[in-house]
Amino acid sequence: MGTTVTDPAALTPREARSLFRGGLITPTAGWSAGWTQANLLVLPREMALEFMVFAQRNARACPVLDVALAGEVAASIFDGDLRTDLPAYRVYRDGEPVAEVGEVREYWRDDLVSFLIGCSFTFEGALLEAGVPVRHIEAGTNVPMYLTNRECAPAGRFAGPLVVSMRPVPARQVGDAVRVTARYPAVHGAPVHVGDPAGLGITDLDRPDFGEPVEIRAGETPVFWACGVTPQAAVMRSRPAFAIGHAPGHMAVTDARDSAYLVP
Amino acid sequence: MGTTVTDPAALTPREARSLFRGGLITPTAGWSAGWTQANLLVLPREMALEFMVFAQRNARACPVLDVALAGEVAASIFDGDLRTDLPAYRVYRDGEPVAEVGEVREYWRDDLVSFLIGCSFTFEGALLEAGVPVRHIEAGTNVPMYLTNRECAPAGRFAGPLVVSMRPVPARQVGDAVRVTARYPAVHGAPVHVGDPAGLGITDLDRPDFGEPVEIRAGETPVFWACGVTPQAAVMRSRPAFAIGHAPGHMAVTDARDSAYLVP
Repeated sequence: MGTTVTDPAALTPREARSLFRGGLITPTAGWSAGWTQANLLVLPREMALEFMVFAQRNARACPVLDVALAGEVAASIFDGDLRTDLPAYRVYRDGEPVAEVGEVREYWRDDLVSFLIGCSFTFEGALLEAGVPVRHIEAGTNVPMYLTNRECAPAGRFAGPLVVSMRPVPARQVGDAVRVTARYPAVHGAPVHVGDPAGLGITDLDRPDFGEPVEIRAGETPVFWACGVTPQAAVMRSRPAFAIGHAPGHMAVTDARDSAYLVP
Repeated sequence: MGTTVTDPAALTPREARSLFRGGLITPTAGWSAGWTQANLLVLPREMALEFMVFAQRNARACPVLDVALAGEVAASIFDGDLRTDLPAYRVYRDGEPVAEVGEVREYWRDDLVSFLIGCSFTFEGALLEAGVPVRHIEAGTNVPMYLTNRECAPAGRFAGPLVVSMRPVPARQVGDAVRVTARYPAVHGAPVHVGDPAGLGITDLDRPDFGEPVEIRAGETPVFWACGVTPQAAVMRSRPAFAIGHAPGHMAVTDARDSAYLVP
C-alpha cells in the first residue's frame, strides 16, 4: 500500500488496527510492544460449541482469550472490527484454504462466532527480558512450527494433531525458559517437550510444517511449546464447511496487555 | 440411607461417587481430600455455547474445568456418570428450582451439555497449610455466599450478578491469603474484594444469600472470592427453559488432583 511504518513497536493497538483496516498487509511480529497478539478462528455457530470444548480440552494449545458471539464483530479485548482489522486472513472451505485476503467482509455471515486464541508472542518478551535468546527474532524470521504425532483430545467433530513451536535454548538456560513461560499459562505456558524431536514424531527440524527453520547451535537444546496454529490444523483435519483464520504470522493486535496474562 | 462413612476424607473419588450413586445424600466438604470438587451446570445444547462464553467472560467466577458434550455423561476428570454420581441435584425450569433429587436420570435428555466448574474447596487446603484459618471449616458449616452489585459480563441470553464467598482473615494474614489463592487461578484465584462489604453492595454479612453466616472476630478483615454459585445465579436471572445444577454444597468429586490447578 506504500505505507511506511518506521516504529511499529510504538504504535497503540488502535493505531495498528487502523493501518491494517486501511489495507496494510504485514506480519505483526514486533508490532505494538507489550500488547497481546492473538490467533483468530471464525466458525459457523453450528460448530462453535464443539470447537470451544475442543479448545477447553486442549487448553495448552488453544487458550481462548475472548469470543465474539454471532452478530458481534468486536470483543472485550479487541475494540475494533474483526472482519477488517487484522492484516490478513485465510478463508477455508471444507478444511481447505481457498483464499488469503486483507479483509473478510464479503465472506461474513450473521451466524459466525469468532475465537481469539493466545499466542506465544506474549511470552517472548519475557524470555528476552530474562536473557534467554530467541533465535527467530534475532534472525528476523517467523518461528518454526511442526505437526506432531500427539493427538489432541477430540471434541465432537473436532480432532487434530498438536502443533508446536520450537526455540533452541542454551542448555544452561532451559530452566529459565521453562520457569519464565510457565508464568503465562493462558498463552501456552511451559514447554510441552524439551529435547529429542523424535519424541514428538518430528524427523527433521530443518523442515518445519509452518514458519521458517532456525539455526540450532552447539550446546543448545530444542524446546517445544504448544502452538496456536493447532486450531487451524484441526480445521484442516475436521473439515468444517466454512472457517476463517488469520494468515499465519498476521495476528490480531488486541487491547489486552501481555502483563494481564502473567501469574504470580 | 443408613450408610455410615467414618473417614470420608480417605475415600478415593471412585469410592465416593459409588456411595452417592447408591443413594447417599450428604454435603461433600471434607470428602476425598486432595481431589478436586466441582460445581455442575447442565444446559440444553441450544443454550450451551452462550453459557460457555459467559463462563469465559467471567472466568474468575466460572472457571470451566471440563465439559461433557450432548450424548456424553462422563468427562475426562469425572470417570463416572454425571446423572447419578453427585450426592444431590437441583433441577430448574424457567430459572426456578423445581426439584432437589439424588439422581437425574428421569430428567436427562440427549441434548444436554454438562459443565464442571471450579470450586474454592480446592484452595482451602492450601490456605490451611499456609496457617490461614478458615472459619467455616472450624465451625463445620457451609461457607457464606452473597449476591453482589457487580454485574457479570453478559453473553447472549446469559447475565447475572457476581456471587462471592467470604472468609474472615486476620489482618496480618490477608497478604498470605491473597498470595496462596492467587496460585490457583483456575479455581477462582485471588480475592476480588478485601474489606468493606458495602463496596460489593452487601449490607449485612450475617445474612448470606447462600450458605451460613460465620463469626468475624476483632482484627479480622472480610475477604471475598468469586464463587462458583455465580452460574446458578445466572440461571435464575436468565431463565433458560431447563437446567440442572448440583445442590449447593453437594459437589461433583472429580478424578483431578487439587495440585493440578496450582501454578508456579
